[in-house]
Amino acid sequence: MSETINVAVDAMGGDNAPSEIVKGAAAALAANDNLRITLLGSKEPVGQALSGLDYPKERLELHETTEVIEMAEPPVNAIRRKKDSSLVVGMKLVHEGACDAFVTAGSTGAALVGGQILVGRIKGIERPPLAPLLPTANGPVLLIDCGANVDARSSQLVQFAQMGSIYMEKIVGIQNPRVALFNIGAEEEKGNALVKETFPLLKALDNINFTGNIEARDIPAGAADVVVCDAFTGNAILKMYEGVAKVLLSEMKAAIYSGTRAKLGGLLLKPALKDTLKKFDVKSYGGAPLLGLTGLVVKTHGSAKAIEVQHSIEQCIAWKQADINSVFISRMHLVDRTKTAAD
Amino acid sequence: MSETINVAVDAMGGDNAPSEIVKGAAAALAANDNLRITLLGSKEPVGQALSGLDYPKERLELHETTEVIEMAEPPVNAIRRKKDSSLVVGMKLVHEGACDAFVTAGSTGAALVGGQILVGRIKGIERPPLAPLLPTANGPVLLIDCGANVDARSSQLVQFAQMGSIYMEKIVGIQNPRVALFNIGAEEEKGNALVKETFPLLKALDNINFTGNIEARDIPAGAADVVVCDAFTGNAILKMYEGVAKVLLSEMKAAIYSGTRAKLGGLLLKPALKDTLKKFDVKSYGGAPLLGLTGLVVKTHGSAKAIEVQHSIEQCIAWKQADINSVFISRMHLVDRTKTAAD
Repeated sequence: MSETINVAVDAMGGDNAPSEIVKGAAAALAANDNLRITLLGSKEPVGQALSGLDYPKERLELHETTEVIEMAEPPVNAIRRKKDSSLVVGMKLVHEGACDAFVTAGSTGAALVGGQILVGRIKGIERPPLAPLLPTANGPVLLIDCGANVDARSSQLVQFAQMGSIYMEKIVGIQNPRVALFNIGAEEEKGNALVKETFPLLKALDNINFTGNIEARDIPAGAADVVVCDAFTGNAILKMYEGVAKVLLSEMKAAIYSGTRAKLGGLLLKPALKDTLKKFDVKSYGGAPLLGLTGLVVKTHGSAKAIEVQHSIEQCIAWKQADINSVFISRMHLVDRTKTAAD
Repeated sequence: MSETINVAVDAMGGDNAPSEIVKGAAAALAANDNLRITLLGSKEPVGQALSGLDYPKERLELHETTEVIEMAEPPVNAIRRKKDSSLVVGMKLVHEGACDAFVTAGSTGAALVGGQILVGRIKGIERPPLAPLLPTANGPVLLIDCGANVDARSSQLVQFAQMGSIYMEKIVGIQNPRVALFNIGAEEEKGNALVKETFPLLKALDNINFTGNIEARDIPAGAADVVVCDAFTGNAILKMYEGVAKVLLSEMKAAIYSGTRAKLGGLLLKPALKDTLKKFDVKSYGGAPLLGLTGLVVKTHGSAKAIEVQHSIEQCIAWKQADINSVFISRMHLVDRTKTAAD
C-alpha cells in the first residue's frame, strides 16, 4: 500500500464554501484510500455541509477555526491578525509537518504571502512561484510565475524553469517538457533587461529542455509545455486568456440568440461546440500549485465547484507520490545560502 | 478648402507589396482631395501595380528607391546600411518636412528605430510609443506602448498617458477618454515597481481622465479607452489577444466542420457570427501610430490589404487636420531639456 498523505483543506475559502469544498473533499476521500483530510473551518456550517455525504469518516478530521480571511483583505495584515483563520491554521499544519499539503479556494494574495511566511521555502529556493496550468489547442501549458514575484530576478526565473520542468514531467507526465522563456520576439537578442539576462542562463542549464523564446501568440497554440516569466507578465497573460475567451464566447452567444435562424444554427452546432469548449476549460486541471515550499500549497479558483476541489486535492497526492520536493533538491543542485555562510 | 497633406507611403513593405499598398494609396487619393502621396519603391513593380488603376495622377509621385528592408533584418543595421531603402528614404522625407507622415507595412522594428533616428522626436518627448487600437466589446481601446520601450520609466508612461488621451479624443472622437494604467490588480498598492511609481504621477495629472488600474481581463470588455503600459507588457497583451482569438476561432471552425449536423448549424449561424466577428476585426482601424515624432509614422499590418492601407493613410489626414503635435506641445507642457540645460 502506498504512503498516506495528509491534506489540509480550507473549508471557508471561495465563493462556494463550505458546501462545494466539503463535497470535493468527501469525493477525494472516497476515491483515494491513502488520503487523509483535515478540514479547516467553522464547526456548524462545515458539519452541516458534511451531514448526509457518504465518505470514509475515519479519514476526515474537522479542525475548528474561528476566523476567515476575506478576498478583499490586504494579505499581510490579514495573516498577521487572523491567527485562527482557516488559512493560517492550515498552513501552520503544513509547516509543522502534521499535513503534507494545503488546498484553498480563498484569497490568492493570502495564499501567496502565507506560503512564504507560514509554510516556508525549501532551502536554496529563492522565491516560490505560482504556476497555473492553462489549456491550449495542444494540451496544457504551465505558466510559471503568476504569483507574487512581480519584480523578479534572472536567478529566480532560472529556478522557475527547473521547477516547472520537473512538475510537468512528474505530475502531468510529459517527457522532456519544452521549456520556453516568454519574450516579445523569437530572437535571442529581443526583450527587456530581465529576459536578456535570463536567456543565456537558461540556455546553459543541462537539466531542462530549453527551446528558446516564446511569443504570446504561440502560447494558446501550445508551442511549449512550460512558459517562464515574471509574475507581472504572467498575470497579464493569464488574465488576457480569460478576458478574450470570455468576451468572444459571450459575443458568440449573443449572435446565437440574435434571431430564429441563428438560434436554430446554434442548437445544431451545440454538441460539437461543447466538445471544443471543454478542451479549453481550465477547471479540469484542478488548481495552481505554489511550488518550492516545504509542503505544497494549491490555490484553486475562487469559483471552484466540488470536482475542481477534488482535482486539487488529488494534485497533492500526485505531488507527494512523485516526491517532487526531493526531485527539486536533487536535480536543481540547490545551495542553502544560510548554511554556506555559516560553514 | 483644407490644407494639403503629403503622405509618404512605403510601397515595398509587407506581404502584399506593392500591389495592395499601391491600390490602397490610389483609393485614398480618390477619396481625399487634399491628399498628396509620395510612393517609395522600385520603379518597375510599382509602376506596373499603378497601371490600370484609376486615381488623380497629378497628386501621386513615384519616388524611386533601390533597396528594401526585409522583415528579418536587425533594424539598426538595416537602417544604417540600406540608405536607399523605401523606409529610410520615406522617413527622411518626413524629417525634412517634404512629407507630413509615413505609412509602412514593413518591419515593425525598422519602423520603430527609423522613427526615433530618422524622423526624430518632438522636443521634450522622451520616447515615441507605438499605440495600436484594439477592438473590444465596447469600441476600440488604445494600447500605449507596444513599441520599443521595453524597460520604460514612469516619466515615459506619464507622457504615453497624455499622448494616448489626446489621440483618442482628437482622432477617434471620444470625449474625456478613460485612461487606465495596466496592472495586475485594481488596488493602488498593487503591481511591480514601475506601475507603483507611475500610479501617483498619473493620479496627479490634471489634463487626463485617469480612472486607475485596469486588469488584463477587463481590456477586451472595453473598460478603458486608453491602456498605459511598458512595451514588453503591451506586446504580451496584444499578442495574447491575437493568439487566443485565433485559436478559439480555429477550434470553433473545426467544430463546425466536424459533422453534417454541425455543418448545417454553422451555415445557419454564419450571418450572425459574421457581424460579431467584424466587431473584433482589427483591420478596420488602419495601423498603429508611432506618436511623439516631428511627423507621424503609421505601422500597418504586414498582411495589410488595400483597405487597411487606405485607412492608415487617412489616419494621417486626421492627425494633420487635428494638428495633434501642436496639441501635444500645448497640453503636455513639454520641456525641451536640451534647451533648459543651455539657458
